[in-house]
Amino acid sequence: MNKYIDIYKNELLNEIVPFWSKNSLDKDAGGYFTCLDAKGNIYDTDKFAWLQGRQIWTYAMLFDKVEAKQEWKDISELGASFMRKHGRDENGDWYFSFTKRGKPLVQPYNIFSDCFAALGFGALCKINNSNEDADIALSTFNRILERRNNPKGKYTKGFPGTRDLKNFSLPMILCNLSLELEHLLDKSTIDSLIDEVLHEVMSVFYQPQSGLILENVHHDGSFSDSFEGRVVNPGHIIEAMWFIMDLAVRKNDTELVNKALEIAFTALEFGWDNQYEGILYFKDIKGHPVQQLEWDQKLWWVHVEALVTMAKGYAITQNEKCAVWFEKLHDYTWKNFRDAENGGEWYGYLNRRGEVSIPAKGGKWKGCFHIPRALYQVYNTLEQVAEPAKI
Amino acid sequence: MNKYIDIYKNELLNEIVPFWSKNSLDKDAGGYFTCLDAKGNIYDTDKFAWLQGRQIWTYAMLFDKVEAKQEWKDISELGASFMRKHGRDENGDWYFSFTKRGKPLVQPYNIFSDCFAALGFGALCKINNSNEDADIALSTFNRILERRNNPKGKYTKGFPGTRDLKNFSLPMILCNLSLELEHLLDKSTIDSLIDEVLHEVMSVFYQPQSGLILENVHHDGSFSDSFEGRVVNPGHIIEAMWFIMDLAVRKNDTELVNKALEIAFTALEFGWDNQYEGILYFKDIKGHPVQQLEWDQKLWWVHVEALVTMAKGYAITQNEKCAVWFEKLHDYTWKNFRDAENGGEWYGYLNRRGEVSIPAKGGKWKGCFHIPRALYQVYNTLEQVAEPAKI
Repeated sequence: MNKYIDIYKNELLNEIVPFWSKNSLDKDAGGYFTCLDAKGNIYDTDKFAWLQGRQIWTYAMLFDKVEAKQEWKDISELGASFMRKHGRDENGDWYFSFTKRGKPLVQPYNIFSDCFAALGFGALCKINNSNEDADIALSTFNRILERRNNPKGKYTKGFPGTRDLKNFSLPMILCNLSLELEHLLDKSTIDSLIDEVLHEVMSVFYQPQSGLILENVHHDGSFSDSFEGRVVNPGHIIEAMWFIMDLAVRKNDTELVNKALEIAFTALEFGWDNQYEGILYFKDIKGHPVQQLEWDQKLWWVHVEALVTMAKGYAITQNEKCAVWFEKLHDYTWKNFRDAENGGEWYGYLNRRGEVSIPAKGGKWKGCFHIPRALYQVYNTLEQVAEPAKI
Repeated sequence: MNKYIDIYKNELLNEIVPFWSKNSLDKDAGGYFTCLDAKGNIYDTDKFAWLQGRQIWTYAMLFDKVEAKQEWKDISELGASFMRKHGRDENGDWYFSFTKRGKPLVQPYNIFSDCFAALGFGALCKINNSNEDADIALSTFNRILERRNNPKGKYTKGFPGTRDLKNFSLPMILCNLSLELEHLLDKSTIDSLIDEVLHEVMSVFYQPQSGLILENVHHDGSFSDSFEGRVVNPGHIIEAMWFIMDLAVRKNDTELVNKALEIAFTALEFGWDNQYEGILYFKDIKGHPVQQLEWDQKLWWVHVEALVTMAKGYAITQNEKCAVWFEKLHDYTWKNFRDAENGGEWYGYLNRRGEVSIPAKGGKWKGCFHIPRALYQVYNTLEQVAEPAKI
């Protein structure tokens, strides 16, 4: 696995980061453009809270973990200046999207806007020591905890009491966010939160019979035989398992590492497309038709998160199966998502056959986040366990 | 074109209608199952207001227009009994979906639930002469008119005042609904409504420069350079043009027929996939990446509605270009959507290459509506202008 260290590090520092540094900065109004075509040209100037928060995080993380380059700190700050000024409504909840100049376009109906804002400001305050930014991260985090049992509030379309389901995404993200904000939280808060989200993910959403995690379950964790209840998102499961492994390492819990890895393997096998390779986006756990028309597409984040999970699994357990899966995923991902022609950021959306379906590097949901984070996580993980190269 | 009359009529009466009559009826709780797999097996028992209303309409229309079979009237009644009992909230607005036994699952956030309920009860009251059903249709129609400037009400996520767009779907459906409810409305109401929706469709949403109709425009009809503003749904345009042609015939307005047909040709040419044939689901008017991941799929309703538009265009104008397009669409549609193996209803969702992507005959959005309506419309239209067959 050692050979991948340089490959991932070079791609991050020579292709991905320069692409975003060159093309995404709105030096005029602040914030980041994320709607960038294959060559990095801006095709839309709207700004999306998820992607603003995530890019603030990415550049702060690079400054903190890779190299203390002033340029990277300034880029993180550019997004933060926009979001401090325009991001929140009068309750402190984060709008979903904005015009170029920061007028709100879409109301704060989506709690993940808040999660990624907390993530971004949490990382930024680590490198700029700003109390204001620490307050933004912490107050946002507290609002997420307040809102988490009713995250959509008045925008909830479900009729109360008929089929109340809870969704896997929020506990999954809280696994990661709780560690990212560790420097801002007191130990007892974080310990009890971690225990709670571990319980949610590994006992409530996890289904022992299939070995998989469902996207939506009844409040008691039981199965709902409905479109929402049957849907499996293999990429979500696989990504969550590296968050869980990070928590397991922190808790020094080998059993938890092994369990997370076992679930990740099950999800990889369940999601793998034996006909055209790659990981399918959605499948029905009972094999029924799904409601997501894009079910058979291959998405960038699914594949790069799987690379991280296998790299971490390998680093912690030395299980050879991780290396085998890593290589298989690496071959597919680098061949199909990477843009050999234009370089820079990778494509995000492939059809089932692995052909580019949306010829863009970013948009409403894809920005400067999964690929740089994954490239960093892979090389950093492998570096930590690397043997001196055998010549 | 005469040869298509028997082909379309046979398919309707020997394949499509028997499929729904056999597989979709919930004789236990009332209403219709629409989640039916390739062989007609029920894979989910939830019920969806759009599809309940539409199937009530289809069977009432068959009774009214094709043959006064008691079975068809009973089937229309089966859906109506469910919807009368469970369909509405205390304001008379229609829930979006229900459990098998009629408990509401999703709130009345979607005004098209109301449109299709009005359509269904409007057709049923024509054949059962029920004042109650006429009242349901009429009061629903009046609520739609009341709600139409703010159709999503409290579920609206757009921030007011930043980029207020209006959507093409509602005026488009009102074109059709106003004619379908003509027997319930007084002449001055319907005449002024028709003039209003014609203005909306042909002057506000229609863009002279491209010759296309946009899905979303500013309130003054001007272009919004955003994901929502740039998106073109060729199938929507083509379907709307047969609604417009029906209105034009009613108004005896030849110029309007020609204009509608010209727009339909432009949309067909814009939407046609020169690489793999068929009509693409979404395209950006400026050629930018779209946000809809399913943009390159081929959908059943798009193709059968295009067949209706070309059949009507041919019948009214005898323009040979309609016949050429009809044959091209017929060949693609029958080859790819029709299920030669199992028979019955056709498939709904193909990938760009024309392969079945969702192996189901119905689901949350596809029921007993577009295919039977289109088959009926095509053969009935061609019958009306048919020359005696040349032997």
